[in-house]
Amino acid sequence: MKNTYAVILAGGVGSRFWPLSRELEPKQFLQFNGKQSLLQQTIQRVLPLVAAQNIYVVSNEQYKFQIQHQVAEFAVPAANIILEPQGKNTAPAIGLAAAHIFKRDPQGLMIVLPADHHISRPERLTVALKKAIEAAGDDRLVTIGIKPTSAHTGYGYIKAQGSKVVKFTEKPDKKTAEKYLKTGSYFWNSGMFVWKAAVILDEIKAHLPELYRTLALIVEAKELDARIWAKISAISIDYGILEKSKRVMVIPAKDLGWSDLGSWSAFSATCGKDKNGNVLQADCVDFDSKDISVFGKGRLVATIGLKDVVVVDTDDALLVCDKGRTEDVKKVVDHIKHAKRSEHFTHKTVKRPWGSYTVINNANGFKVKLVQIEPKKRLSLQRHLYRSEHWVVVEGEAKITVDRDVYFRKANQSIYVPKKGIHRLENPTNTPLKIVEVQCGQYLEEDDIERVEDDFLRK
Amino acid sequence: MKNTYAVILAGGVGSRFWPLSRELEPKQFLQFNGKQSLLQQTIQRVLPLVAAQNIYVVSNEQYKFQIQHQVAEFAVPAANIILEPQGKNTAPAIGLAAAHIFKRDPQGLMIVLPADHHISRPERLTVALKKAIEAAGDDRLVTIGIKPTSAHTGYGYIKAQGSKVVKFTEKPDKKTAEKYLKTGSYFWNSGMFVWKAAVILDEIKAHLPELYRTLALIVEAKELDARIWAKISAISIDYGILEKSKRVMVIPAKDLGWSDLGSWSAFSATCGKDKNGNVLQADCVDFDSKDISVFGKGRLVATIGLKDVVVVDTDDALLVCDKGRTEDVKKVVDHIKHAKRSEHFTHKTVKRPWGSYTVINNANGFKVKLVQIEPKKRLSLQRHLYRSEHWVVVEGEAKITVDRDVYFRKANQSIYVPKKGIHRLENPTNTPLKIVEVQCGQYLEEDDIERVEDDFLRK
Repeated sequence: MKNTYAVILAGGVGSRFWPLSRELEPKQFLQFNGKQSLLQQTIQRVLPLVAAQNIYVVSNEQYKFQIQHQVAEFAVPAANIILEPQGKNTAPAIGLAAAHIFKRDPQGLMIVLPADHHISRPERLTVALKKAIEAAGDDRLVTIGIKPTSAHTGYGYIKAQGSKVVKFTEKPDKKTAEKYLKTGSYFWNSGMFVWKAAVILDEIKAHLPELYRTLALIVEAKELDARIWAKISAISIDYGILEKSKRVMVIPAKDLGWSDLGSWSAFSATCGKDKNGNVLQADCVDFDSKDISVFGKGRLVATIGLKDVVVVDTDDALLVCDKGRTEDVKKVVDHIKHAKRSEHFTHKTVKRPWGSYTVINNANGFKVKLVQIEPKKRLSLQRHLYRSEHWVVVEGEAKITVDRDVYFRKANQSIYVPKKGIHRLENPTNTPLKIVEVQCGQYLEEDDIERVEDDFLRK
Repeated sequence: MKNTYAVILAGGVGSRFWPLSRELEPKQFLQFNGKQSLLQQTIQRVLPLVAAQNIYVVSNEQYKFQIQHQVAEFAVPAANIILEPQGKNTAPAIGLAAAHIFKRDPQGLMIVLPADHHISRPERLTVALKKAIEAAGDDRLVTIGIKPTSAHTGYGYIKAQGSKVVKFTEKPDKKTAEKYLKTGSYFWNSGMFVWKAAVILDEIKAHLPELYRTLALIVEAKELDARIWAKISAISIDYGILEKSKRVMVIPAKDLGWSDLGSWSAFSATCGKDKNGNVLQADCVDFDSKDISVFGKGRLVATIGLKDVVVVDTDDALLVCDKGRTEDVKKVVDHIKHAKRSEHFTHKTVKRPWGSYTVINNANGFKVKLVQIEPKKRLSLQRHLYRSEHWVVVEGEAKITVDRDVYFRKANQSIYVPKKGIHRLENPTNTPLKIVEVQCGQYLEEDDIERVEDDFLRK
């Protein structure tokens, strides 16, 4: 166990769970069922096999604070969070983690897991991973193959002969998938792998030599150079290595209750249903619907006489979609991105390293925000050129700097921050601080900010 | 024309347009298509035949300020707004209007119109009403019969022989409706009538003698006594008078483009469709839906691959309903009423005689409202026992009284109103005033108000 490491791939910006997921809050950070996010569930899943200090998370720089926040409860060291300046698909991400692990422990063996999958029976995964670890000890590239339970057309398949991989296939059509299911020698490609860091680096050297050279450079340097990373070709580990290597083998896993959560329909399939086949995870009043899924938070959703429909309700965007068409949610996201809207990017509540804010009203000449500052955190020392701010503390206690003066305000007290005043909002206490901020001015966008000093080194 | 009056029945609390309609904002006050509400469209429709000072509106006391506001542009006298303490169906409402008109003008002839119907070609109604006025001159009770264009099962039918009414029927089943349509001697009962006030009072005397006696009492008194009104039996004019009287005749009206707007489906049928048969009156992104209707305001609604679905999106409640089931919206309203929720009663934006307020955030210990005060209007002089209020003016200028002092505040200025402080908010200018109000306290309900003085005589 000492030499066993886990590498969790958490860099996806998947748009298929819009409007619940946003570019700044992708699927892996969301709680779907239960209290933990998919990333946290993934960490939980490897804890029987891997010590927390051996868990690595590879993700994108823009998710730095969310990952720090989410891994906090597991004692994963900050140094184990590897942040790519840009997503380059799985081969570079895995290679980067392998290089880090190899440097730390040349005997290191790594379990690679996507951060955004669902597994109902994780104890069965543990069994499969144990077998895989054993096999990887013989310098094999082990892939976990899921025993298919249906002729799914949304997954890639692995054809095996015994434990030997014959070939990787693309997503098949229905007919082909049915054939695969019947033969019994095909497995779903789960994206879960086990191998020695040294072995995967060897394979990268053989099949992706340019990537190998770049990884060597990067690991020697102290910081990841964004210009070097930008030049790396994006390529998947399947296409770049596994389809070419002679050392690949498959360990089958059965009855995991595995799903890649590839769409709202796929997620619905993992949820408990009521007697009408409905999943109603909302404040929902339904009359006579069948096989529908409703996801909401807070707002009342009334449904009548629907069949095979998915409803996802969020503060600023609503999705109503035929259950057979949930793959096309991506089209909506592309459309609103192209239209330069904001609903694909953030929620109304925007997370920040110091807490979060929610725009509760946005109008010509003024904007109202509810701002929450976590204990002992503070915003940057900053100023705005075009707006004044009225702050009313509604919960907790605030320490407020305006120019040279420091003020303390508690619930039911207010303060005024004039335009151009250099100010800072801080929560010096051990409980959350909430303020209502009324901004006044003709220009009220987020980019009207000059940061004089910042705990989080933002520009 | 001098002796011609219009009586517009605007007392309905119809719940079939929920969530757009609410108990405090029923259908007749809503804009469905165009800029005018259904009530205003109805007034507009009789103006070619009736002077504004001869237009009466009968409604419920709780809609007093909304009606005053909506009729303002038509110079309908305040004295012509007749407010029932309770709805008692159409016979008492019509009788009350008839008694008022008869007292004013014994020769008076009245056109009775429901306030919440749709007519695409009002000029054709004018033609039919002119004929009806002529016929009513011969002491007839004239009902406008709509030439059916389909075997509609949602309407009552009138069987006629020439202009003579043979009988009124209830809503038929599909088969019966098809038979009615074929014979050509059946008309839809439109609820539009024309008669002399004296004649309908005579008929009420004959068929509803108790109502007649009560009306006589009420018209003699200066104010409508709620205790007397409470004792009146609720009964429709159709059932109470028209089915019994010998003086009833029908004037057919053709091609009015008439609809009683009885449901979201009925409303959708009156709207223009795109090439896929969709009505998209929302900020909507659709892929491949057919024959759907989406009504929203502001929030992004994405629809994919739907068929025959109605989506109605409002700030605090969402409806997604099969098009064939829109009659059942009533069931949802009954359900939420029974559950003692609030979404059947008001919108997030609540209209007040002085303007409106919107609850933009509601949490434990604080509540945030956006308050709009119309020019020259003011709220009551009031105090709260359990909450303090922070007001930030964000548009216009406010005159604010707190205890013995008067303050003036303009945009980007604020004031604090302490718990128990006697205060008043006033807009002394000619442009709207907007303030953001942050309430702090442990009890934040609307009933924490003591009105010391009120322009609108509220308790």
